[in-house]
This record gives sequence, C-alpha cells and structure tokens, in this order.
Amino acid sequence: MTVTIDPTGSATSPAGYRAGAAYAGIKTYGAGKLDLGILVSDHPATAAGVFTRSRLHAATIDVSRERLEGGQGRAVVVNSGNANASTGERGLQDACRMAEIAATKTGLSTDAMFVNSTGVIGHHLPMDKIEAGIEAVELSANGGDDFARAILTTDLVPKHCSVRFGPYTLGGCAKGSGMIHPNMATMLAYLTTDAPIDREALQTALSEATDRSFNLITVDGDTSPSDTVLLFANGAAGGDAIMPGSEHYDAFREALDAVCIFLAKAIARDGEGATRLIEITVNGAASEADARRLVRDIGTSPLVKTAVHGADPNWGRVAGVIGRSEVAIVEEAVTIAVCGHRLFERTVPIPYEEAEVSRAMSGEEVTIEVSLGAGEASATGWTCDLTAEYIRINADYTT
Amino acid sequence: MTVTIDPTGSATSPAGYRAGAAYAGIKTYGAGKLDLGILVSDHPATAAGVFTRSRLHAATIDVSRERLEGGQGRAVVVNSGNANASTGERGLQDACRMAEIAATKTGLSTDAMFVNSTGVIGHHLPMDKIEAGIEAVELSANGGDDFARAILTTDLVPKHCSVRFGPYTLGGCAKGSGMIHPNMATMLAYLTTDAPIDREALQTALSEATDRSFNLITVDGDTSPSDTVLLFANGAAGGDAIMPGSEHYDAFREALDAVCIFLAKAIARDGEGATRLIEITVNGAASEADARRLVRDIGTSPLVKTAVHGADPNWGRVAGVIGRSEVAIVEEAVTIAVCGHRLFERTVPIPYEEAEVSRAMSGEEVTIEVSLGAGEASATGWTCDLTAEYIRINADYTT
Repeated sequence: MTVTIDPTGSATSPAGYRAGAAYAGIKTYGAGKLDLGILVSDHPATAAGVFTRSRLHAATIDVSRERLEGGQGRAVVVNSGNANASTGERGLQDACRMAEIAATKTGLSTDAMFVNSTGVIGHHLPMDKIEAGIEAVELSANGGDDFARAILTTDLVPKHCSVRFGPYTLGGCAKGSGMIHPNMATMLAYLTTDAPIDREALQTALSEATDRSFNLITVDGDTSPSDTVLLFANGAAGGDAIMPGSEHYDAFREALDAVCIFLAKAIARDGEGATRLIEITVNGAASEADARRLVRDIGTSPLVKTAVHGADPNWGRVAGVIGRSEVAIVEEAVTIAVCGHRLFERTVPIPYEEAEVSRAMSGEEVTIEVSLGAGEASATGWTCDLTAEYIRINADYTT
Repeated sequence: MTVTIDPTGSATSPAGYRAGAAYAGIKTYGAGKLDLGILVSDHPATAAGVFTRSRLHAATIDVSRERLEGGQGRAVVVNSGNANASTGERGLQDACRMAEIAATKTGLSTDAMFVNSTGVIGHHLPMDKIEAGIEAVELSANGGDDFARAILTTDLVPKHCSVRFGPYTLGGCAKGSGMIHPNMATMLAYLTTDAPIDREALQTALSEATDRSFNLITVDGDTSPSDTVLLFANGAAGGDAIMPGSEHYDAFREALDAVCIFLAKAIARDGEGATRLIEITVNGAASEADARRLVRDIGTSPLVKTAVHGADPNWGRVAGVIGRSEVAIVEEAVTIAVCGHRLFERTVPIPYEEAEVSRAMSGEEVTIEVSLGAGEASATGWTCDLTAEYIRINADYTT
C-alpha cells in the first residue's frame, strides 16, 4: 500500500466527528487568533494517548490521564495562550472545571472530555473567558480546520491532514512551534479515525507511531509540561474491530505512521523562526537507541542549526556532535553527507565544491546523513534551522 | 585567605616564563589577528593537563597526551584559525611537525612541546604559514598578553589574569567563545605558576578545578575536538615541593580554583553574541552530579537564554527544564529565583512586579537560583544569553 496524504484533510475528515473553535480572548499573538477549540466524536470511541514525561507537568495532563484510564473519553477541549502549568491546586480545579463546562456544552458526561492548555506557563486560566469561549463554539462536521487553528501558539501555519486506508479515514492536526523536543515538548496532536479499533491495539499503535515521529523532532531541545497526543477511533464507518492479525490492521498502522510523520515534519518545518526543514538520518548505529540519540544530539546542536541557516557546508560541526555524543562509533568508518554530498569519510574530509553544496543547502529542505559503522540500526528525525527570528520571538514572549 | 585576582596578569606573570605571538596568516577573523603563540617555561616544570573527551578529537590532542605522559612538557605552541581536526593521518603528522619546529625554535627537545590548534574543523594546516609564524615569534617575559590574544578565535576580548599565593604567583589565559560546553568544548586554557608542585598533586588539583569551572560553563551545548587545559609549575620562585599537607597547598588550591573560575566566567561572558553573563545555582540537589547536570540543562536551554536576552522574567521556562530533566526533585519544595526575586515556590507562581524583575535582569549579570528540596548538594555554573548576533556569527563562519 502507498499512503497518500491529503493535506486539506483534518480531524473531522473521518465520519462521526464534529469540531469548532472560538476566540475567547486568551491568546494575544499567533495565527488566526482562535484560541479555544472543541473536538467531539458523535459516537462512543476508544481512545489512546501519549503524554509529556515532564515531572512539572500541567494540571490538564493529570485530568487527561484520568480520562484515558476511565475509558469513556471521546472529546477534547483545548485552549491556547495559557498553559495552566505550574499553577498548583487552583490549576487542577480550573482544568476540571474547563472539562466540565465543555462536557455540559456538548451534552457529554465529564468523563468523556479530555482537556489541554498550551501557552505561557505560570498564569492562572481566565475562567470567565474560558467559559464564554466554550459557549461561543459551534460544532460542525467541517470544523476541523478551525479546531486546528485554535490550538496554535506561535505557529505560523495550521497543520492538519488525512489519509484513507481501506474503507476508513484517519485524520488529525497538530501544533508545535517552540519548546519542541523529544518526549514531545509543547506539542499537541489530535488524531481521529472512523475505523473500529481495539483499545489495546490503538494504544500500542499510537505509542509506536509517536516514537517514530513526534519523538524524533526537535526545535530547541526544550520540553513542555503540556505535550499530548490523543487518538480517537469511533468505528463510525462500520466493520469488525481492528486488531493485530485482522484485516486492515497493517494498513491502519501504516496510515497512522504516515499521518504522525507528516504532522511531525510540519511542526519542525514551522519551528519558531525556521526557514528550512532539516532531515537527519543516522545509519550504521549499534542500536536503535543510539541512532535516535544521535539524531536528537545533531538536531539540537545550535552550531549545526545555524550552519544550515547559513547554507554553510560546515560538516565539522556534525563531526563535533558525533565526537561528543555517547553513541558507539567505529572511527574509521564514520561518514557524513549533506544534501547527498559525501563530505567526510575514513577520518578525513573529502574535497568538494563548496558553492555547489551551499547551493544544495539553500532550499527548503536540507538532509544530513551520518553513518557510524557500528551496526545495523538507523533512525530519521527532523529539526529546523536556528535563526535570528527565533531569538526575536523568544526574547519577547511574555513581556 | 582571600584570593585577589589581578585581571592584568597573564601566563608570564609567574617567574621563569616567556611567551610571544605572531600573525601567521591563518586566521581571517577575530580580535587582534595574532594567530600563533608560544609559551615556554625557562626551567624544567611539572605539567598537568585535561583534554576533550570527544572521540573525534583533533590530532594535537593525541600529541599533547603523549607529552603529558612523557613528563618533559614545559612549553606549548598554539595556532588559531584552523583546528587541524578531522584531518586524519596527515593531521597527526602536521601536529608533530608543528611541535618539532617550535621545539627547535625555542631550543627545547620535541618532548617538551605541547601543541594545540583551534578554529575551523576539517582543513589541513597550512604548514608553510605555521613554520613562518613560529619563526616570527619573539619570546619575552611580558609576552603573556600577546599569547592570550593569539589563541582567540571569535572571542572579542582576551582573557587572562593572575593571583598571588604566599610567595608564589599563578597566572594564565583562556579562549572560548563558541562551541563551549561541559567537557570543555572549544576552549583552551594555559596556566602557569612559579611554585614547585608535586606532579600528582598538580594533576589532581587541575582536574578538580576544571570540574568546578571550565566544566560548568556552556555557551551553546557543543563540544569541540580540541579542548585543552594545561598547567605548568616550574618552581622558579623556590621553596619545597607543594603537596597535600604541605605549607601553601591549600592556598595553591584556592588560587587555582579562583583563576579557573575567573577565566571560565570570562569565557561565558564573552560567548558568541552574548550581552549578559548568566550565573546558575542549583541547591538542594540529591547529589552533586544532579546539581551539575541541572546547571548544564538550564544553561543550554535556548528558551531560558533568549528569555534572559529579553530581560523577560519568564521563570516558567526554568520550570520546564526542571520538569524534563532527570534529576531528583521534591515537587512541592521546588523554588525558582531570578536576580534574587523568588518567583515560584510550593508549585505555584509568586505574584511579582514584572517591571522590577525585568529591570534587575537588564544588567550585565543575571542570576538564576533553583532549589530542588531533594538533598544537600549544590553547584554553580555560567552561561550567556542567546542573541541574534550568535546566529549571525555562526551562520557565516566558514563561507
């Protein structure tokens, strides 16, 4: 099967989902200015979730974990502009209340309503605005685009898509921008499918797809207290429950991976201040853990990211990261290629035409490919270049 | 004893050292444009060294490690502008030849001559320029300032100082700027004393002083293949060998720590594009390793560094780093203070006057103090703010 991504698709592309958004007046920056969104499955659904590993996580994470365990979750309410993180006991109460208001509004039990907040840390939610915002939301079967915009913070573009697999559709949206790092950083993603999927299979598939996508992107090495990926499967398109070994299972996994990777790359490409997507591939690693680790180490190096910004084939900076990283290497076998040009092998630089490689690096996507000669494992991840615009955005975020 | 730093001192402040520098035409950027320096002890000396842990280290590191083992080392030749790193077998031959030429020039055996190169990675040394540069150096007892300038790359200011302890002097210089990170990154430091110090005591003292200073600074999280700290003790001021338990031993340790911390802070303050020094203190850690690790995690966070650049009391970003780091915390006991203002405790923000804290952050030094409530260990380290100028410098380094 070849997966064909529809970049116009969204979380309401699959049957049986409605979504909507409003401007509640919480967000004072960012694209579109919608800052409160609700996504609902019209039918009972199985849900799977992956959450931030930050110990100082936001109150919403506790609430959402509870929903996942409860097994009734089929909707989510999200606000942007305020993360409701580091807000103590009152923050937890606010998160519960926000879920409750949204549940009442949509006619669901509170147990069905996940809740997320993203934005600045350490400020209490303006609950009057939240309440008015929730009231103002109008749900519709083509509200996925508005919902995708409402979850954005400093993102410049909404990120959404859908794919078909067999008789089913899988869609979703994500937000990213800054504070993006493995274990998901400030990123939110909401995925939906109208396929009927066994709950355990759904969770396994989501965890593994997250590891191959959202956990391999980095913008700035920072992790947020609010990261969440949710996946709903409501079975609205009928058929038997999908699980390992059943029809459509492999297609479902492939579709899910494709959507997660599409959204993850969209997040990296739209990293704060970014002008280029960087795709980093590590081959010949002794283990997958090593390969993933080096992908992240290279992807967080400011020197590598600024060199790419300058379209500067300064592969020595990649060598510097390999040297300091703790992954296994066979020194004589290490190779480095940039945009398909092999620049380093057998411990020495390969003469190359600087202008030609620099020209290749001047496009919207730059590839860095490293081989370690230490084994058979590999990994691919994504980051963006580091620019003066990143500094401008982040030096002036709250003040 | 109170240690008084003389910021006009240098590696030739102690008795029995000469140094000099020349412009060999290797460096095409940077302050002063001297790019080749030699430092020599006129007497046999004990030497101690700490080197990069990068596996893809420069050829000069192999040569210098050999010198240290040989026990005859009492001089060093350094060039800036070209790191002679990732240059394979020819790089090693060039490093040996560079040491040999400098040894001949100074009338020493090759075994006495350490060698370092710093600058761009992956280019072979222009040996004709190196040779002519070495020939042009004139050594003198007040050449420490020129030597300190010759080792600079993108540094804006030379970094040198000296202190007195008992009848002795300890002096030195360092270079830093970019690619600065624990385990020393692109940093070089050369320290000298006219005290007679037992070789084993010298190495122990240097390793421990490095851990408390150069290994606790970070500019951008990147490590270089050339990092070196060397300390010579030539006994030119007379007296009995200093070792643990002997007179002057404690004063020597204190002096060495003070010089290393002074130079480390000077490196962080002069980080590429920096406008502010950031001092990070972690208290209440379960172990010193935890405290040091969190100092580094905070010091490498682009979000923290840009917030400081914007004089933005966005302590939530510090909380974000604490949350994602793997150090032990007692969540209810975590506190965060910026420039002496307590902003977060008992899981909630403390109301504060934003303009007042922002004003306090607008100076040349910003302090971030974190307490974890998990134990008694602590550590202090240094970094600088992240600015658009950093991007400019690093996007255009080789091209």
